[in-house]
Amino acid sequence: MIIVIKPHTPKDQIDEVVAEVERLGYTSHAIVGAVQSVIACIGDETTHHTLEALSALPQVAKVMAVQRRYKLVSRESHPQSTVIDVAGVPVGGPKLSLMAGPCSVESEEQLMKTALAVKAAGATILRGGAFKPRTSPYEFQGLGRDGLKLLAQARAETGLRIVTEVLSENDVDDVAAVADILQIGARNAQNFQLLIAAARTGKPILLKRGMSERIEEWFLAAEYILSEGNVNVMLCERGIRTFETYTRNTLDLAAVAIAKKETHLPVIVDPSQGAGRADLVPILCAGAIAMGADGLIVEVHPHPAEALSDGQQQVDFTGFQKLVSGLAPFLQAVGRSV
Amino acid sequence: MIIVIKPHTPKDQIDEVVAEVERLGYTSHAIVGAVQSVIACIGDETTHHTLEALSALPQVAKVMAVQRRYKLVSRESHPQSTVIDVAGVPVGGPKLSLMAGPCSVESEEQLMKTALAVKAAGATILRGGAFKPRTSPYEFQGLGRDGLKLLAQARAETGLRIVTEVLSENDVDDVAAVADILQIGARNAQNFQLLIAAARTGKPILLKRGMSERIEEWFLAAEYILSEGNVNVMLCERGIRTFETYTRNTLDLAAVAIAKKETHLPVIVDPSQGAGRADLVPILCAGAIAMGADGLIVEVHPHPAEALSDGQQQVDFTGFQKLVSGLAPFLQAVGRSV
Amino acid sequence: MIIVIKPHTPKDQIDEVVAEVERLGYTSHAIVGAVQSVIACIGDETTHHTLEALSALPQVAKVMAVQRRYKLVSRESHPQSTVIDVAGVPVGGPKLSLMAGPCSVESEEQLMKTALAVKAAGATILRGGAFKPRTSPYEFQGLGRDGLKLLAQARAETGLRIVTEVLSENDVDDVAAVADILQIGARNAQNFQLLIAAARTGKPILLKRGMSERIEEWFLAAEYILSEGNVNVMLCERGIRTFETYTRNTLDLAAVAIAKKETHLPVIVDPSQGAGRADLVPILCAGAIAMGADGLIVEVHPHPAEALSDGQQQVDFTGFQKLVSGLAPFLQAVGRSV
Amino acid sequence: MIIVIKPHTPKDQIDEVVAEVERLGYTSHAIVGAVQSVIACIGDETTHHTLEALSALPQVAKVMAVQRRYKLVSRESHPQSTVIDVAGVPVGGPKLSLMAGPCSVESEEQLMKTALAVKAAGATILRGGAFKPRTSPYEFQGLGRDGLKLLAQARAETGLRIVTEVLSENDVDDVAAVADILQIGARNAQNFQLLIAAARTGKPILLKRGMSERIEEWFLAAEYILSEGNVNVMLCERGIRTFETYTRNTLDLAAVAIAKKETHLPVIVDPSQGAGRADLVPILCAGAIAMGADGLIVEVHPHPAEALSDGQQQVDFTGFQKLVSGLAPFLQAVGRSV
Repeated sequence: MIIVIKPHTPKDQIDEVVAEVERLGYTSHAIVGAVQSVIACIGDETTHHTLEALSALPQVAKVMAVQRRYKLVSRESHPQSTVIDVAGVPVGGPKLSLMAGPCSVESEEQLMKTALAVKAAGATILRGGAFKPRTSPYEFQGLGRDGLKLLAQARAETGLRIVTEVLSENDVDDVAAVADILQIGARNAQNFQLLIAAARTGKPILLKRGMSERIEEWFLAAEYILSEGNVNVMLCERGIRTFETYTRNTLDLAAVAIAKKETHLPVIVDPSQGAGRADLVPILCAGAIAMGADGLIVEVHPHPAEALSDGQQQVDFTGFQKLVSGLAPFLQAVGRSV
Repeated sequence: MIIVIKPHTPKDQIDEVVAEVERLGYTSHAIVGAVQSVIACIGDETTHHTLEALSALPQVAKVMAVQRRYKLVSRESHPQSTVIDVAGVPVGGPKLSLMAGPCSVESEEQLMKTALAVKAAGATILRGGAFKPRTSPYEFQGLGRDGLKLLAQARAETGLRIVTEVLSENDVDDVAAVADILQIGARNAQNFQLLIAAARTGKPILLKRGMSERIEEWFLAAEYILSEGNVNVMLCERGIRTFETYTRNTLDLAAVAIAKKETHLPVIVDPSQGAGRADLVPILCAGAIAMGADGLIVEVHPHPAEALSDGQQQVDFTGFQKLVSGLAPFLQAVGRSV
Repeated sequence: MIIVIKPHTPKDQIDEVVAEVERLGYTSHAIVGAVQSVIACIGDETTHHTLEALSALPQVAKVMAVQRRYKLVSRESHPQSTVIDVAGVPVGGPKLSLMAGPCSVESEEQLMKTALAVKAAGATILRGGAFKPRTSPYEFQGLGRDGLKLLAQARAETGLRIVTEVLSENDVDDVAAVADILQIGARNAQNFQLLIAAARTGKPILLKRGMSERIEEWFLAAEYILSEGNVNVMLCERGIRTFETYTRNTLDLAAVAIAKKETHLPVIVDPSQGAGRADLVPILCAGAIAMGADGLIVEVHPHPAEALSDGQQQVDFTGFQKLVSGLAPFLQAVGRSV
Repeated sequence: MIIVIKPHTPKDQIDEVVAEVERLGYTSHAIVGAVQSVIACIGDETTHHTLEALSALPQVAKVMAVQRRYKLVSRESHPQSTVIDVAGVPVGGPKLSLMAGPCSVESEEQLMKTALAVKAAGATILRGGAFKPRTSPYEFQGLGRDGLKLLAQARAETGLRIVTEVLSENDVDDVAAVADILQIGARNAQNFQLLIAAARTGKPILLKRGMSERIEEWFLAAEYILSEGNVNVMLCERGIRTFETYTRNTLDLAAVAIAKKETHLPVIVDPSQGAGRADLVPILCAGAIAMGADGLIVEVHPHPAEALSDGQQQVDFTGFQKLVSGLAPFLQAVGRSV
């Protein structure tokens, strides 16, 4: 930590800060200038009392963090890329992981048809929401446990692995009984109790970035999972909230490259939420691949216009097939395959 | 809903949209212009299938919502302002509710001293976090159930009512056994399962606005609670996340006036989180009162520089006393008292 | 500046950075830890080569600024609050400056009627746009020089001082011939050439904050004007662009208190642009006064629904009169008068 | 335009709005429901009085735009993609346009060396700032006219075309005498007077998106140029300002695809400004190509750590050479070449 002292602070008040720093267990180096002084504090911020609170002192201008706050997720601590074993399907290796399926599980027919269609197009993992977090209590909330049963059935019939969202600590075990990957949604991106409960199942976790979560906070949310002993985390970029209204969110593709560089975890991109518009989904998939994404999670529905949730961002079967074949040259460019 | 058709769409494709609208149970009025056409759809969007998904149709340019999506929280549905009875202390009436206390409950001594100090200064409700949502797993996570016990003790000794955050559905009953108000924090602002569990205790709920939650979404989160039969919701503005870095968040004081106008619920302002800097807290309290706030929730600590969390935004006892006395002229201006 | 070295960097690569720092004229203090090292660099960043570029070196993790970048606008350099003499009307002193008038000057009748109405209600400065920056080339662009003539006439007939926007360096002299205050709008907030040209007229300048301008950048834009020898700058908060859509902008009232604290310049609030909705303008005026604003600039139109620009945020004459009388208790609270 | 009437508004007040709409020259269709009513208004909003101001009426809930506000830039008005002739070098056709060079022109040696290096790597257009818009008046402001002379010399010696920023209407002619493309920077993105002056030179214009400019506003800024008769506009995405601090800006790559779809203009991506970090520039170039960009503008400097501006985001000669060769597979994927 670097503590910046206000200009023209007398020596004895600087000493006061130094004393406080030492008392909290850090080694301090004060660099006292004619006008401006700073105190460099050496010590592990993850095991000591935070120094941030020192900005409450009147002579302190600001306290600046120097260290990275995440450890277990960092590539520094684990140089090789982590490949996650999703019930036999690797995520994070040379193959691009293709996850696809409806926004919500709506009916047996809808789910089975979609599962077969996405499998035929090359997907290995089926997505589908049984528990849906909806902005309004009057919107369709998902089929719940009935939805889970349909997902189990789809898994049995198609062999596709299942990724589905868990909204409640109380549902973690039931969801984990069916799902191969537990999805933590953007609204729960910093619901640490849910993260911990999900981590403890040992199942792979797809962790979406929160709507206004800084990249460092996203990594720290993953750190919660890893510090529970579960290293099977996929980071999922799904767009951040900005002032732009043309797209539902602003897909931050630079974050994909950053996550690949700074962490050892696989990175998945969700272009459906990212754009909120089906027409942009295919090209965003190409962009995501070029930026180094290890996988894509795409919303597919038999009849998007009749979807019970987010129809505007779902592609139909033909659209998905075209999307996948259109990715071939980009996969080749990065040396990957589906 | 208004469906905007793409320019130059032939009549039969417009009819296709009309047919879909009617099939979903709405009455449609197509206004077909030489270039531009729109379809106005009459029907209750809260009981019918959403029409938003129709933007998946290729001839649809966009679908625009006309109706307000919230009902029970709206002032239209309940013209008088709701006054909440917090174990005998009214919130939302002519008096300004003053909630104060430490960011985190740290020890018996810290809490009791602070409770007495804030009571002496005029507070009627004690805040204090027992369960703390922290960005990093390596930061102080609160005393948990031991913190709840200390809060219960402070309540017994001072008569102050208690507001404290609940992070987990599994803790709702334990927290409700001690707290007079359950606080839902910004990170859980759209954790609907937690909202529902908290609602079902029947206890008053302080609902913080999420970091990037639009005002409409905040009202809809409250609607989740009211639709569970619990009308005792206080809306709490605590700043939104923007590009500005001088303050931790951007306190959106216009949102206070909007919430008072659009809903019948009491509105509380959190200037400590809002600014993230103790020096701005007093003047933000004045601003909040001028904007119509029904209450304030202020972080107070015996020694902010040694606080285990968020010391930089906590005021000390003298600071809090000055803050409260400085509010007198503003309370007089709005015809309120502490 | 503090240069943070990447963890585990060998000593010779740290020395390389030190050498570069010294070469650029700074004194360096390297604090070398077992894992983490930092280099504190002493020297005036406003007269030396920037050290920010050193983050281009592979062993540098980041470069953090320590010093404030603004000087002439800082309260540190000029402890007393500046009171600007606007042709005999003081701005920044104990009186609240009330600036009001139409968004755009539309006609002689519209302007004269409005001028008389706002004067009767207590305004001392008339606003009115002759040159209008409009998002679309198809929108009303203002009356230009004819608008300036009408403003001159209104000044002559009512004695009100004039504030009006200048959009082009080429119009600076013509606008300065009529206006008592040159307004720099949000879109030109970092059009430094225009700022410099306006500064050189010696006229008082109302400098709006840009739509996504950080507070520090706003102060630095003012610094451009002061460094041209013109100290007559009023900082104007008019809302920043966020994800919120209920209001046109998010009025950042904390910025008012910050500007009063950090600089010696008068601070004006524009609640009309800030909210983009007439119904919120009166209460935002009260909030602005409580937050320490030295003045208000309010859009007033005889018939807002027929305004050629921004009718939705303009109040009518009765509305403005009520607004002003409603401010009395808040002015009393802060010890000010109109 | 759609005018949404407040719920429970009596018929005569709806008629009042209808009358106003008709008086302003629009044809109205009122759809009056039991609770909710809307008025659809047919008429060209680009030639009539805006209806937005009607939201000033007390019975109006909101006014919603239906039409696109831009025309000349729209692909609807001009289905083929525009290819701009930059003194013999086409921009917008099958070849990817590679623009590269230093952030600022600093010296003859720096510029000439860089020009030769970027040419050798495949660039056809040399960038270099002679007039620099800097946040602080104490930062290097560029060499001005001396910088222009060096650019002219580099053009003569290398045959590279020149793109350089113009900051002032008064410099437009001098810059146009040297530059093949006039760059309008992010800070001047809505400085319409500068846009008009630049447009009138007839030179190709590279129009950067403003820091917080919505996509529609960016297109409307281009519309200003086209409506002056200059169709040679390149839209340049350079990142928007968000809450994220890891990168200097958030590069909005979806905006590239949107601009290609909605307009007929070439789209250029600036990854240097977009990331503000040299290490992310190469992969962002790959992403930009995958998203359909017609060109890249990349900052290159002989010794980034000693650059007079923005060293942290400039790549060196070796870095640029590697960057360009690394793009080959992505160019192949989209069927383009340098």
